Amino acid sequence: MSNGPIEGNAVIGQSGGPTAVINASLAGVVEGLKSVGAIKKILGMRHGVKGLTQDNLIDLSDIGSHTLDALCHTPSAALGSTRDKPDLDYCKRIFESCRKHDIRYFFYIGGNDSSDACRIVNEVSNQAGYELRCFHIPKTVDNDLMMNDHTPGYPSAARYVAKALKADSADNASLPGIKVNIIMGRHAGFLTAASALARSDSNDGPHLIYMPEVAFDLERFVQDVAKVYDRLGRCQIAVSEGIQDKDGQAIGAMLIQGETDAHGNVQLSGSGALGDQLANILKVNLTPAGGKPPRVRADTLGYMQRCYPDQSPIDVAEARGSGRFAAEVASQGDVDGSIAIVRTNDAPYESSFKRIELTDVAAKTRHMPAEFIKGTNDVTDAFIKYAAPLVGDLPEFAKL
Amino acid sequence: MSNGPIEGNAVIGQSGGPTAVINASLAGVVEGLKSVGAIKKILGMRHGVKGLTQDNLIDLSDIGSHTLDALCHTPSAALGSTRDKPDLDYCKRIFESCRKHDIRYFFYIGGNDSSDACRIVNEVSNQAGYELRCFHIPKTVDNDLMMNDHTPGYPSAARYVAKALKADSADNASLPGIKVNIIMGRHAGFLTAASALARSDSNDGPHLIYMPEVAFDLERFVQDVAKVYDRLGRCQIAVSEGIQDKDGQAIGAMLIQGETDAHGNVQLSGSGALGDQLANILKVNLTPAGGKPPRVRADTLGYMQRCYPDQSPIDVAEARGSGRFAAEVASQGDVDGSIAIVRTNDAPYESSFKRIELTDVAAKTRHMPAEFIKGTNDVTDAFIKYAAPLVGDLPEFAKL
Repeated sequence: MSNGPIEGNAVIGQSGGPTAVINASLAGVVEGLKSVGAIKKILGMRHGVKGLTQDNLIDLSDIGSHTLDALCHTPSAALGSTRDKPDLDYCKRIFESCRKHDIRYFFYIGGNDSSDACRIVNEVSNQAGYELRCFHIPKTVDNDLMMNDHTPGYPSAARYVAKALKADSADNASLPGIKVNIIMGRHAGFLTAASALARSDSNDGPHLIYMPEVAFDLERFVQDVAKVYDRLGRCQIAVSEGIQDKDGQAIGAMLIQGETDAHGNVQLSGSGALGDQLANILKVNLTPAGGKPPRVRADTLGYMQRCYPDQSPIDVAEARGSGRFAAEVASQGDVDGSIAIVRTNDAPYESSFKRIELTDVAAKTRHMPAEFIKGTNDVTDAFIKYAAPLVGDLPEFAKL
Repeated sequence: MSNGPIEGNAVIGQSGGPTAVINASLAGVVEGLKSVGAIKKILGMRHGVKGLTQDNLIDLSDIGSHTLDALCHTPSAALGSTRDKPDLDYCKRIFESCRKHDIRYFFYIGGNDSSDACRIVNEVSNQAGYELRCFHIPKTVDNDLMMNDHTPGYPSAARYVAKALKADSADNASLPGIKVNIIMGRHAGFLTAASALARSDSNDGPHLIYMPEVAFDLERFVQDVAKVYDRLGRCQIAVSEGIQDKDGQAIGAMLIQGETDAHGNVQLSGSGALGDQLANILKVNLTPAGGKPPRVRADTLGYMQRCYPDQSPIDVAEARGSGRFAAEVASQGDVDGSIAIVRTNDAPYESSFKRIELTDVAAKTRHMPAEFIKGTNDVTDAFIKYAAPLVGDLPEFAKL
């Protein structure tokens, strides 16, 4: 790990759903690489590995500090992203593009599918005896990467969810009724769980939180809501888009009938169907005999969760820092890996980075640990302690 | 207009859909009234006139400046709101409650339905020869009140829409496809139009903007989208929830089948059906023969538009100021009315308040003027000039 930088070019790509801070990771890699003497050009892939294999590259070598700073506050993937999930053949083409462009440093910012692409490209280059330093830099609003305390992108998305549910709970108290909020997170409930940060006192919403880790039962759901509604005259509910029944069948996917992406994932975001369906079920089941149906509304928080320009300051710093750390480690020797965030202190919150193996994260999914889940519809204090420092200061609302 | 304050109590209520600043108007009325010597108690209606008629009142007389300041940054209706639309009989009961509680000042913060309630209550009290100073204080994210340059609540909602569409356009450029965004505004396109503030350069979204003031034609809609999609490989669309066909039939209502509120309005918010339906229509119509359907997603921006805690500073100041102004005018003599915002300068933006007659705004709807609408799917520079100063600074994003 100490043969120093290797002469050649570097390439950086972004993959999967954008986040509020994936560009901060990009800025971090660029500024980390700029101080490494042996690197000739810093290239960006347009739309991830798809752009790389099509020679669609952009030269980032001369990017100034003003633009790097601005990138840190720009949601979306500024290089363009892709949903392509490279198989072995695709990864061989990626490798050939790297060789062709004299690329010796390969940085890919993305989720667990992207770390898997990194892993395969790394194996192909190893077999070819070509020194390619492959790094995966974590990014996902779902927070579902192994070996990470949390992943860049999650704190800002969690911040949006917490602020949104906090304001929506006050709105729900203004005009009482039942409000369903659908929150992102295909397999992991971390983002839905973050809605609990919206609570200031015991009657605040969300009153019920449904995560994919707990088998979702429609009958129990209706009973849960009825109980809160009877007690408070209102009920605010946070539901993960990824809720599943006891057989692991996604409730959303059953309702949406649909389209799958290149990874075989059913489209869950970008549709209001799950929320509308749950709202209808509540309306039908909670209408008293001969009486008026309760006021039931549903919002699907949608893409704003991953892009609304209201970042968690810690998230920006960690996303940028993880990119810089990857560049530094890559410059130190013939090594590959992914970057993980390690929490070193709780209060005040402090963290550091470490290199982990690509195989530690590649294509694996982390779920909410049991100690974060309370019963079938809530989170524990341990989760609050975990998530609160990540999202930054939340507004306090006046109550009369 | 100069017989000064009248001895008695004051009551304040909030009505209709909450906004990000309706509590700032409440704070303004309270602080305006506090300096009026003749007022004994300042009362708040719980859930608007419904609470008033049920003696559900709260004493706001001793509310401190800290809480008043906090209220200004608290979305939702802190007193509770109502969708009740009082008819003459209801207004007679409201009046009787006022007489019973020795109320001489009646302030109602709401939209055009609320101003109509104010107008009727005022007539009833006039007929009874009871001096009740009735004031309506405007509030609506729809911006659809007559005689107003704009209404409190609109600038903050417009700010959310502009920031959301700006981030979503960057997201859409990252993973190209067609994105439909459904925006609030039952009859008026002001809020949907505000999406245009998201643009920084000519290729930025929103590429198409559909407002209720322009007859919506499904066939033309599909052609519009196809044209942008062919040119840019992507298309971001802003659609008002209130779009209507050439016969004035609401497209959303036709799809949602449904529930109406006490005002006879069909429920448009709190459902993703319109967006999902439009997305499906685009997917079906834009799939090439034998080819893959384009990536089409829909988000319904939902209640976040009226409550996300990211206020326009001008909006907070004007909402608070309009409440204070109403209290001051009411203390000066036996007069009733509504408060209107007058723009006194464009750059730098300046505004003042004036009293207008209740009959000027009551139950009337203001629409986007023709000079704000460009063709069938865009806004004019005149609209941008109108709306830009209201929303406050918007973030600038880096582009590579």
